[in-house]
Amino acid sequence: MDHRELVELAAEIDADLAARIDFILEVDKLKHVIRRSLLVDGSRQENTAEHSWHLALAVLVLAPRAGPDVDVARAMEMLLIHDLVEIDAGDAYIYDEEARLAAKALEDAAAERIFGLLPADEAARLGGLWEEYEQRSTPTARFAYAIDRLQPLLLNAASGGVSWTENGIRHSQVLAVNAPIADGSAAAWAVATRILDLAADRGALADDRHAPT
Amino acid sequence: MDHRELVELAAEIDADLAARIDFILEVDKLKHVIRRSLLVDGSRQENTAEHSWHLALAVLVLAPRAGPDVDVARAMEMLLIHDLVEIDAGDAYIYDEEARLAAKALEDAAAERIFGLLPADEAARLGGLWEEYEQRSTPTARFAYAIDRLQPLLLNAASGGVSWTENGIRHSQVLAVNAPIADGSAAAWAVATRILDLAADRGALADDRHAPT
Repeated sequence: MDHRELVELAAEIDADLAARIDFILEVDKLKHVIRRSLLVDGSRQENTAEHSWHLALAVLVLAPRAGPDVDVARAMEMLLIHDLVEIDAGDAYIYDEEARLAAKALEDAAAERIFGLLPADEAARLGGLWEEYEQRSTPTARFAYAIDRLQPLLLNAASGGVSWTENGIRHSQVLAVNAPIADGSAAAWAVATRILDLAADRGALADDRHAPT
Repeated sequence: MDHRELVELAAEIDADLAARIDFILEVDKLKHVIRRSLLVDGSRQENTAEHSWHLALAVLVLAPRAGPDVDVARAMEMLLIHDLVEIDAGDAYIYDEEARLAAKALEDAAAERIFGLLPADEAARLGGLWEEYEQRSTPTARFAYAIDRLQPLLLNAASGGVSWTENGIRHSQVLAVNAPIADGSAAAWAVATRILDLAADRGALADDRHAPT
């Protein structure tokens, strides 16, 4: 049988459950979305499903470093769903501002379609969670976003900066894009800036630290 | 730089944070552990990191179907970490009882090593969470385990049962191994048994439903 037939069979027993199963099978496609970041051992690029797992787990172990106004469980939920729209819209590279703006309309439509597979109350709940993340409208969303910036930085640095080098990324770009890490943890941002300086010293990032302004 | 150098650099700034970063980089290896299940489109086998993401997300959307004594956030946390031991012990196929028993000692040592990368209080907390899952000692752990049984069943069925066929799995085996789904949701188990009957009807599962006892 296939996805469709399985959902129809489930719907004969329990329509609410069938809608949830439909969603679970649909989001499997996130495992096919390939990101720019390499795995720590440099062997291949990361996909967005495993990236999302890594972020949620990072929230779990960084929770004691979060501010008191962060809802840790909610941050985990956000990060599990934050990139589902990439199933339709693809992964827009964080350093490609044009692609990111162009993706926005596609992402909104994707959220409608994908969360819309669920029963209405659940669709509204997850849609609201995604919107909160997109808007960074709460301390929880800003903490989640900080983790979404920190993890690729750690992966890129630990795999020798290949992803930065291959894409011609400059030190100032990484600093600007990742500054929201400071909203998650001042110490994490202190570590990140040290990492980026060392990466620039070694040529893994194009060094524009002393460029004339 | 590499994983080790990055952690040493972080430790100069903040030893507690460096330990957490060490753990985050170490668990990246779960993306290399390959399971028997195929993705829904049948294109390749699933890895354990993306499997863990899929389970945590399934908990999120199946939460309204969980019993009142299930702590949903805790079930998500459990599923994010439940297979980390596979980094050292590998994935023991659910239908290979001998391999599963042989893996147990390796898995216990892996839990010691991997959770032990974290600060002591965090290591104890995650070790306890993993132990609760392993023992199925709470309604939350039994719900999490039900999801861990349901997701591969859905993937295998939706991808045409190739994983069952190739491994010569019988209907009675799948029924026995997956019966704990009923602890998570009676409706989900009703759907699962219908799926398995259809799979046996079509030869995706070896049909021993009417074998002499």
